[in-house]
Amino acid sequence: MFTDTFDVRFYETDALKHVSNTVLVGWFESARIPIFKVFNPTLDLDNWPLILASYKVDFLQQIYLGYPVTVKTWISRLGNSSFDVYQELHQQEEVKASGITTLVHFDYVSQKSAPISEEVRAVLLSHLRET
Amino acid sequence: MFTDTFDVRFYETDALKHVSNTVLVGWFESARIPIFKVFNPTLDLDNWPLILASYKVDFLQQIYLGYPVTVKTWISRLGNSSFDVYQELHQQEEVKASGITTLVHFDYVSQKSAPISEEVRAVLLSHLRET
Amino acid sequence: MFTDTFDVRFYETDALKHVSNTVLVGWFESARIPIFKVFNPTLDLDNWPLILASYKVDFLQQIYLGYPVTVKTWISRLGNSSFDVYQELHQQEEVKASGITTLVHFDYVSQKSAPISEEVRAVLLSHLRET
Amino acid sequence: MFTDTFDVRFYETDALKHVSNTVLVGWFESARIPIFKVFNPTLDLDNWPLILASYKVDFLQQIYLGYPVTVKTWISRLGNSSFDVYQELHQQEEVKASGITTLVHFDYVSQKSAPISEEVRAVLLSHLRET
Repeated sequence: MFTDTFDVRFYETDALKHVSNTVLVGWFESARIPIFKVFNPTLDLDNWPLILASYKVDFLQQIYLGYPVTVKTWISRLGNSSFDVYQELHQQEEVKASGITTLVHFDYVSQKSAPISEEVRAVLLSHLRET
Repeated sequence: MFTDTFDVRFYETDALKHVSNTVLVGWFESARIPIFKVFNPTLDLDNWPLILASYKVDFLQQIYLGYPVTVKTWISRLGNSSFDVYQELHQQEEVKASGITTLVHFDYVSQKSAPISEEVRAVLLSHLRET
Repeated sequence: MFTDTFDVRFYETDALKHVSNTVLVGWFESARIPIFKVFNPTLDLDNWPLILASYKVDFLQQIYLGYPVTVKTWISRLGNSSFDVYQELHQQEEVKASGITTLVHFDYVSQKSAPISEEVRAVLLSHLRET
Repeated sequence: MFTDTFDVRFYETDALKHVSNTVLVGWFESARIPIFKVFNPTLDLDNWPLILASYKVDFLQQIYLGYPVTVKTWISRLGNSSFDVYQELHQQEEVKASGITTLVHFDYVSQKSAPISEEVRAVLLSHLRET
């Protein structure tokens, strides 16, 4: 599991006086940077080996300004060339939202999806969520 | 169907030189404002009658700066108190992404989900996507 | 003068129920895209010829959701290699905010600021704000 | 001086492969939350006592993904009802950008600017930048 803790920013609220739902996918993306580094240790932008295929977020409770939030990140499915990331947003000891993102390993030379190497698989499996 | 057409903003791109995936949920929210107005014609922020329960976005192709985008918005499911919105992001005559958002009609007095009125149902049904 | 008109997006509000001040610089950047095209007609990202040196925004009145906004954009100073862009944000027939952005013409080969060509100067001068 | 350190988020970059200039004002706003709390300890959104009058940001060098950033925040001017906040954005031991924001103390009952109390002045003065 990867963990990222930070404060809600003022501009991330909206006129309903809670955190805008549109903010979560950015928080979750940021919390996946350690996974990006497993595939691309230097974050080389010219040879980015991952494509985002889809995301889904379930909103369970309102998220508010003034309390730190923590994103917990696990691998929840590991296929041949694609995998799922499961993430939870915690605030004040409660799960406020959860998300699943499907990413595809991509080879920029062949412009096709590509099998995930054994070395990378081993690291990802060490962050598997047991269900 | 509701339609919203606009240009990609420069800051909506990311370092991979395409539109950031995190932008889509904001575009889709903005394209749902006509639906908010069906429930809340004056957009009264103190009695907001809708809660977002979940969203899912599928990314089919890269989206780029320099070409206008169009969001097409339909109702794809109409339950007793909740409903789904189906949206497509078009650019250069192609569907680049699609999304489904589940919204719940909410009564702020009782603090519970509430049935959708016949009047609102009729308007929503006129935007139903036939599948 | 260049003009850009659009609706406020819901997520651009903040918990004070008006438009977040942080949004304006993105709106103003987007309204400067026609100026970017004067220097770089195809918006070629690999040879971007402009650097942003500074911006200043003055907030005169609250900006709200529900009413379209218009950004008006002029050149307000034209130096040898740098220039200023003056922009106003109009909503409901009032100037709600104004901004000045200083941009520098940059040569990526020499990695230095570079004089603005006569051809580009002529176009910029046609958008000069008379003061 | 107040200090806020965090990582650059992926979506905060733009197609020029550095951090978008539009992000800085949000970072700076977030780093001013301790100042908001001096005026409004519970961050009560219904009686917000500060109005942003203007901001200016100077961009000195490119800011990149992959290295933490620190915002340092001082009071740089303290008037009767308004004050200036000076902020610096540091990355890799260099000042990459700096900003000045003018805020006005506001009384929501009278709907006018209002003198800053002695108690608040004392706290703000303890964060004064000596120049």
